[in-house]
Amino acid sequence: MTASRRSWLKRAGQMVAASTIGGLAASAPRDAVHATSKSDNRVELPWSYKKLDPSIVGERGYSSYYKGGCCFGAFDAIVAELQRELGAPYTAIPTSMMVYGEGGVAGNSTLCGALNGAAAAMFLATGGLAKERKEPAFALIRELFSWYEQEPLPDFRPAKPKFEIRASVAHVPLCHVSVSAWCKATGSKAFSPERAERCGWLTGSVAKHAVELLNAQADGKLKAAHTLPAAVETCRTCHDQGSALENTRARMECGGCHFTGRREHPKI
Amino acid sequence: MTASRRSWLKRAGQMVAASTIGGLAASAPRDAVHATSKSDNRVELPWSYKKLDPSIVGERGYSSYYKGGCCFGAFDAIVAELQRELGAPYTAIPTSMMVYGEGGVAGNSTLCGALNGAAAAMFLATGGLAKERKEPAFALIRELFSWYEQEPLPDFRPAKPKFEIRASVAHVPLCHVSVSAWCKATGSKAFSPERAERCGWLTGSVAKHAVELLNAQADGKLKAAHTLPAAVETCRTCHDQGSALENTRARMECGGCHFTGRREHPKI
Repeated sequence: MTASRRSWLKRAGQMVAASTIGGLAASAPRDAVHATSKSDNRVELPWSYKKLDPSIVGERGYSSYYKGGCCFGAFDAIVAELQRELGAPYTAIPTSMMVYGEGGVAGNSTLCGALNGAAAAMFLATGGLAKERKEPAFALIRELFSWYEQEPLPDFRPAKPKFEIRASVAHVPLCHVSVSAWCKATGSKAFSPERAERCGWLTGSVAKHAVELLNAQADGKLKAAHTLPAAVETCRTCHDQGSALENTRARMECGGCHFTGRREHPKI
Repeated sequence: MTASRRSWLKRAGQMVAASTIGGLAASAPRDAVHATSKSDNRVELPWSYKKLDPSIVGERGYSSYYKGGCCFGAFDAIVAELQRELGAPYTAIPTSMMVYGEGGVAGNSTLCGALNGAAAAMFLATGGLAKERKEPAFALIRELFSWYEQEPLPDFRPAKPKFEIRASVAHVPLCHVSVSAWCKATGSKAFSPERAERCGWLTGSVAKHAVELLNAQADGKLKAAHTLPAAVETCRTCHDQGSALENTRARMECGGCHFTGRREHPKI
């Protein structure tokens, strides 16, 4: 895993150096009968990237959280800054499209919306449909996810907070688990204004770190600082690709849900 | 909950009737120093919707899955069809932006990518930043998620499948749980070609059902057929908003992860 991570870091650096605004999408509309407009101004990925100031992005993530939730907040913090710095093609996208990811998508508490929005923004600037575009972008996003699982967060404090917020370790990138872990660590309630403020700080934290990763990649200085924990690698020896059971594709920390409390692993 | 669902269904129908391509985004770039282009052609949400053929969308979801994964597959199935039917502003978006959601976002196995991509597409056609736009769109997405949790899936069979695929009930909208439940039900492995084919059929199923919901909403005939199971409502009496513990925001089926196998709920 480590060798492979080193290899993508190298590839990722090379790719950013070559990153330019690509050509128009090749696929043309098949049918003009019902069309009201046929203008096709799609610019294929990756779009160009210009290094952003992480502290500005963090502050914007926090304030945008209060406008449209966590997923919009993180996406808007990065993409609206790129709209300001680079204009098109970023300006073709209304950042409000990512409001849907709020609270783990429409409040379902699945994937943390800040991660969902940040991942979408990172992919615009680094990814693409082709494997050689997709894989380094995926590795960058995985580093963000592992950081989120393992670090005490939030680690961004806005200039004018509504409350002071204590950090907790989520262990899992899911909204439900992340929120409940923070509630347990702080004694706060899941629908309290303090919890909302915590998610605002967290949106700032995730957007800021996403940009730190993008900036490091643009400089060719990216180092993946977080790998899967040893306990997860142990689980994967029996459950991952090529193993005896091969019954999971997960890369989350298994212990975030499994074998917590009084439940034990079956005897091997 | 039922009354509130009825009320959003009514609002949602009214909104679709009024749905038009909106005005340009109001926010202008703050700084021109670094800009290479300032053209701002964002069209704010919701974008107009034209009823699509669910079987065409399902087939496209299946074939696009093999081009760019589950999240791209579901998003492309809907948005590329709307690009073909309506042109701008859909044509401003490269559907490849949603490749990032593959395998629960970059292979992390969090949220099912087909749900993530379909939710993003549904929000483009129904949502917006303002509360009165967001809430009916969220309710529509929640219906899709509840359907995914409760129905035996995949329920879409492509015209030219690589394998025949058996259905299973995911209980949870997460990639990891959904895949592992299917592996357990069928005896197939998580990285097998059969599992990939299953996710291709599932991408078709999710895209097709998302369009069935959008079409019903456009006709003012949408009925939410899936509510939270009684067991989940029981959990929520102690854990949801306003309860004694109020330590979770989840709307997923609790039993998909908690108190399975030998683990019991603590005595109350």
